[in-house]
Amino acid sequence: MPAASPLVLALGDPAGIGPDVALAAFLRRRGTEGGAEAVPAFIVASDPAALAARARLLNLDIPLVETTPEGAVAHFANALPVLPAGPAFTGRAGRPDASSAACVVASLEAALGLVTTGRAAALVTNPLAKSVMYEAGFPFPGHTEWLADRAGAPGRPAPHPVMMIWSDQLAVVPATIHVPYADVPALLSVDLLVETGRIVARDMARRFGIARPRLAFCGLNPHAGEEGTLGGEDEAIVRPAVEALKREGILATGPLPADTMFHPEARARYDVAVGMYHDQVLIPAKTLAFHDGVNVTLGLPFIRTSPDHGTAFDIAGTGRANPSSLMAALRLARRLADAEAAARPAPAPAPALARA
Amino acid sequence: MPAASPLVLALGDPAGIGPDVALAAFLRRRGTEGGAEAVPAFIVASDPAALAARARLLNLDIPLVETTPEGAVAHFANALPVLPAGPAFTGRAGRPDASSAACVVASLEAALGLVTTGRAAALVTNPLAKSVMYEAGFPFPGHTEWLADRAGAPGRPAPHPVMMIWSDQLAVVPATIHVPYADVPALLSVDLLVETGRIVARDMARRFGIARPRLAFCGLNPHAGEEGTLGGEDEAIVRPAVEALKREGILATGPLPADTMFHPEARARYDVAVGMYHDQVLIPAKTLAFHDGVNVTLGLPFIRTSPDHGTAFDIAGTGRANPSSLMAALRLARRLADAEAAARPAPAPAPALARA
Repeated sequence: MPAASPLVLALGDPAGIGPDVALAAFLRRRGTEGGAEAVPAFIVASDPAALAARARLLNLDIPLVETTPEGAVAHFANALPVLPAGPAFTGRAGRPDASSAACVVASLEAALGLVTTGRAAALVTNPLAKSVMYEAGFPFPGHTEWLADRAGAPGRPAPHPVMMIWSDQLAVVPATIHVPYADVPALLSVDLLVETGRIVARDMARRFGIARPRLAFCGLNPHAGEEGTLGGEDEAIVRPAVEALKREGILATGPLPADTMFHPEARARYDVAVGMYHDQVLIPAKTLAFHDGVNVTLGLPFIRTSPDHGTAFDIAGTGRANPSSLMAALRLARRLADAEAAARPAPAPAPALARA
Repeated sequence: MPAASPLVLALGDPAGIGPDVALAAFLRRRGTEGGAEAVPAFIVASDPAALAARARLLNLDIPLVETTPEGAVAHFANALPVLPAGPAFTGRAGRPDASSAACVVASLEAALGLVTTGRAAALVTNPLAKSVMYEAGFPFPGHTEWLADRAGAPGRPAPHPVMMIWSDQLAVVPATIHVPYADVPALLSVDLLVETGRIVARDMARRFGIARPRLAFCGLNPHAGEEGTLGGEDEAIVRPAVEALKREGILATGPLPADTMFHPEARARYDVAVGMYHDQVLIPAKTLAFHDGVNVTLGLPFIRTSPDHGTAFDIAGTGRANPSSLMAALRLARRLADAEAAARPAPAPAPALARA
């Protein structure tokens, strides 16, 4: 029964604000108006003692219940469901420490086990700190690359993970992400943009319920290059990629001047804006929805969302962490899982991971 | 009496929407609520017949009066003041034609004459079309560069014109403007950013009435380069420029991650955001205020604003042109002129142009 599968939340770095926002989201599960459930049922993969300690630190009276995903939904009205996972957290709130890395990995492994076997409907991941993970020898720059690697099958390449920042106002995808400004032109290619466009179109259809999504591609240069007089990439790379996607039946447009793409009338003309680099689309996304933005990874064999903020060690355990983004991530994960289930002809478990 | 000096409006390309928005702004001069004057008094430098013909085309019953700037304010309640300037416009609405260039030049020369002698309080310029001007042999890429050149004195370089896009929500300055994406890193220098910051700080103080303006500098790279791991320019160029400005007593901060600079709480922390390139700051500016943005040229010896749109030949003469940006440009020009007059110890005429 897919409707009874809860979401699973990987706790992220237990010394950061992951526990704070998980507890705060649980407290707001009924919404502020009463009545309708504002946060869908989730189970946290975590050392239970770490969550209990953070609740005490925050003076929150929150009952925790150790349970399985199958029991989580029934418990959710009265207690926060916890799937015990990993070693005891020995660090302290707000103190980055390499010892947290083992907790992060164990929580994510347990959560991944649930989502790849269909025992959880979708994966939501709280933030980890790159520096902490690197110090502990973790070989990936972040969750996304790790999940993509784990989702690859022997003999075929890992999926191409595509980052989307989603809010009610605007959905954007940067074609390149955490790279220096100057490296972007050499990283752009027709192939990259076509592959990105295909993944976006496919996931918008099967998970967002938009059968024929409209993709708007930003030009790299100001005014989309003014027909080549302000830089050649828009005609040499972006336009051919858009034309190739159109030949495949995808509703792609561009290259468009990026500065006039994000006011309300312009946003009504597309479902997803594909930018050429980080700031080009993260700027409008965070200008319009700073607290409610959700990070969605497209192109994976399961649904994964995460709040669009970091570990914020400086406010961990203080009660000042804002759970809005996690709540939006939980709600979107539920929406995508329900849409995907509704679109599937017959219920089938998600594909198993090859290297689990 | 500075308070009695009107604004002067250069018509821009008479085949574009310049005449449409000038007429529409005049019609809305009393505001929609009645009572308070929504648009300050202005005089249009133009071939009077060109304006009269456009009014007929638009079925607008607008009396025009040929007058001097000294007579304009008294007339403004009942008729649109026109300073006759230049050759007769022989083109047609919506048809770009090289013959329009002479009209553009004559209108701007006449308007410039008023503002540099103190007969007009500030200059507002409607859009010209670069392609039309180039075809007619005009040697500058746009108004701004032309005005800067004209405002230079013999033996000293032309002023460094700095483009600001201003709205009630956000004021931004791009340190580089209409250049290809890939050229930006090589164009950035400590000197450029320091000079830009000085001009912004000076004009914000003397014309915007903000004695100690707060300038926030965007990083070039995503996350402002993460201490150099995502590109070196932020530490090598932006940070030293900000430090140099601070040593001069200017309230500069940065390099800041640009994607988290433009939500409401972040915008409350500064008066002007200085971006490294066009899209970085034009994207948030136009996302927040697409119809009401005003282009202000800082660093000139007189006040100059313009609407933040182009000639829009495709809708010239149709009645579909939106005068909001011109109205905002007129209001801001008036506000800056009044603030500058109030700040000056004794009234003095603006410096004369060297090559007038």
